[in-house]
Amino acid sequence: MRDHADLTRSLAELVVRFGANVQPGQVVGVGAYVGKEELTRAVAREAYAAGACWVDVIYYDDLVKHERLALARDETLDFIPPWMSERLLWLSGEHGARIGLSGPQAPGSFDDIDPARAGRDLLPWLPESSGVVNGRTTNWSIVPGPTAEWAHAVYPALEREQALNALWSAVERMCRLDEADPVAAWEARMAELLDAAGRLNERRFDAIRLHGPGTDLTIGLLPSSMWDAATFETVDGLVHRPNLPTEEVFTTPDPRRADGVVTMTMPRELYGAIVEGIRIEFEGGRVVRIDADRGAETLRAAAARDDGASRLGELALVDGSGRIGPLETVFYDTLIDENAASHLALGSGLSMGLADPADTERINESAIHIDLMVGSPELDVDGITAGGEHVPVLRGGAWQV
Amino acid sequence: MRDHADLTRSLAELVVRFGANVQPGQVVGVGAYVGKEELTRAVAREAYAAGACWVDVIYYDDLVKHERLALARDETLDFIPPWMSERLLWLSGEHGARIGLSGPQAPGSFDDIDPARAGRDLLPWLPESSGVVNGRTTNWSIVPGPTAEWAHAVYPALEREQALNALWSAVERMCRLDEADPVAAWEARMAELLDAAGRLNERRFDAIRLHGPGTDLTIGLLPSSMWDAATFETVDGLVHRPNLPTEEVFTTPDPRRADGVVTMTMPRELYGAIVEGIRIEFEGGRVVRIDADRGAETLRAAAARDDGASRLGELALVDGSGRIGPLETVFYDTLIDENAASHLALGSGLSMGLADPADTERINESAIHIDLMVGSPELDVDGITAGGEHVPVLRGGAWQV
Repeated sequence: MRDHADLTRSLAELVVRFGANVQPGQVVGVGAYVGKEELTRAVAREAYAAGACWVDVIYYDDLVKHERLALARDETLDFIPPWMSERLLWLSGEHGARIGLSGPQAPGSFDDIDPARAGRDLLPWLPESSGVVNGRTTNWSIVPGPTAEWAHAVYPALEREQALNALWSAVERMCRLDEADPVAAWEARMAELLDAAGRLNERRFDAIRLHGPGTDLTIGLLPSSMWDAATFETVDGLVHRPNLPTEEVFTTPDPRRADGVVTMTMPRELYGAIVEGIRIEFEGGRVVRIDADRGAETLRAAAARDDGASRLGELALVDGSGRIGPLETVFYDTLIDENAASHLALGSGLSMGLADPADTERINESAIHIDLMVGSPELDVDGITAGGEHVPVLRGGAWQV
Repeated sequence: MRDHADLTRSLAELVVRFGANVQPGQVVGVGAYVGKEELTRAVAREAYAAGACWVDVIYYDDLVKHERLALARDETLDFIPPWMSERLLWLSGEHGARIGLSGPQAPGSFDDIDPARAGRDLLPWLPESSGVVNGRTTNWSIVPGPTAEWAHAVYPALEREQALNALWSAVERMCRLDEADPVAAWEARMAELLDAAGRLNERRFDAIRLHGPGTDLTIGLLPSSMWDAATFETVDGLVHRPNLPTEEVFTTPDPRRADGVVTMTMPRELYGAIVEGIRIEFEGGRVVRIDADRGAETLRAAAARDDGASRLGELALVDGSGRIGPLETVFYDTLIDENAASHLALGSGLSMGLADPADTERINESAIHIDLMVGSPELDVDGITAGGEHVPVLRGGAWQV
């Protein structure tokens, strides 16, 4: 295995040159957490080498957030400092690049916090984030930034150094840094995903049915819902890859049509807590019941945040040929875990998932976007045509269209 | 010696309650560096416990700055992102509290950087900082935040853990955390310093002469120059202590009157480089020559930054009864080192150092404020009256007035 410093350089190069596609003269915003300094500095170095005029780094600290959640008066918890929004809108106005480093900073650190309070502070996520994404002003990308604390949560049975090695090894594999030419490997995989999206678009399904153990959910699509892969283009024509790794083909569903029940196949981290064994019932597009083995209150509080928080903003299909699912590991990082399995998201929708810009007023709006993994080899996915015909889409993780 | 966690709590309590004097409902800005997370979180905790409505933490990273200084195009180096200034002016407009944690993050890390480039990026210091200080809108305080990297630079002969213990022990001593009641100890020391300032003010000296080994410099004072100690009051009447530790009695001199030569008695860190063995000649208030055993170029670049950068903004006297001088240690942190010895500063002046607000247009203006230590037991300090009489002020570190 290559050493961590070498992998750090390769990952920085991948996210700057291929993921965000940083251009000479651009401002580059970097959102990191304390603990990810080495990768942050490597990203800054690569961005300046790519001609960035300024790399604007913010280190967030969930353990400072913990002090707020533990001690601040209840009526202050919705406050967001104006400079944070001004910074994001400035990056947007400058048509800058944005790079995020994911992976939980301190897993389990909010275990002592009332989930209703934890769910009110979504920082560093901002209410303006969705608008900036949908406005396509910035070329952005998120990659995982391995740390020892995160590795311990993923591989609790391993020693600290072994766990970090294992996490880096997994990131090397899933980010295709083990290929002689990672960019070429990504171009090939993106072509496969875009091809699958194209085949789905040809069918013009009216709805998608997910059925398998504990799940039978039918999700309506909008007339202009488009399937896409995570290759985006800015208003200036800059191609960027918002997530690396990515293995998904996704669309923006009709927030008014979801009926049935869905059982999650993977736990996830939410506001610092672990949510596990989740079962959600939908009626008329809206969540009407949430149960969970662990963390039900946290998810309920999130889904009650605003009107759109209890409706769907995304549906994504992940076939079995990706690199994350076979690792059979829960990473507690949505960037990675959502690409292990088909998933859906409560909350805000992406306007890129619609063919007709005029339809954007029909997509779901919310302060949240919470991906929940529902896929497994046992999950069957069908497309339902406008005429009511059921067409197999995924069986045993393999495309049927 | 108390353990580091215990000292961290005590130092956080001191800076929040006594230093910045945080009030219920205040916004509290915290400026820290990566590596000082434990103290930062303790400060956040104490500030929320004091009733803060929001603790606004920024972690700066000098090693990200290093990548900029190493690689960014020359014409981009003066850029400051607008949100940083907006954040400071917002804290000022809110009449918030501000807390800074000092101590170099990564000593020596800019050794490979052209000093002319290093001197152009003064972040996280902002051009608006002096105006906010002089506007007295915020109650603020800076305390040292020990780290292993900093400790190694101070005590290079010690093992890593021993060095950190030694630095914490020194900080405990100088911050009077070894007293049963640190606040009472500080109140007593502040009273002594204010008393000395009062005696100097009664004399109404027209100028101060520093003379000793390698030094014979006469610095003119303004008609309304006032001697003061580091106890400030905001426009709202909140008393705060801008620096802890503090051992100085300071004033704002006439930037047009300084003649002679001064030899620095301590090295200092400047823009990541060490500046040592400095000798400066003044004529008519202006620096006309800078020599140094090490780092002369860095200091020359700083002094050439703008018109006020080559004139004096501060003169401070430190007597021998303080707690820092006796440690006979160079800490490479101006907050501490400037309180070990009498010092003067190139660059911006404090309007608090003037009795007549109308005189503020006569104080020095600059983007920089660089303290340079000149004091020692061998330095004699005289006051010169308007009539030309020379009056002993300090001899062998003892007050003569």
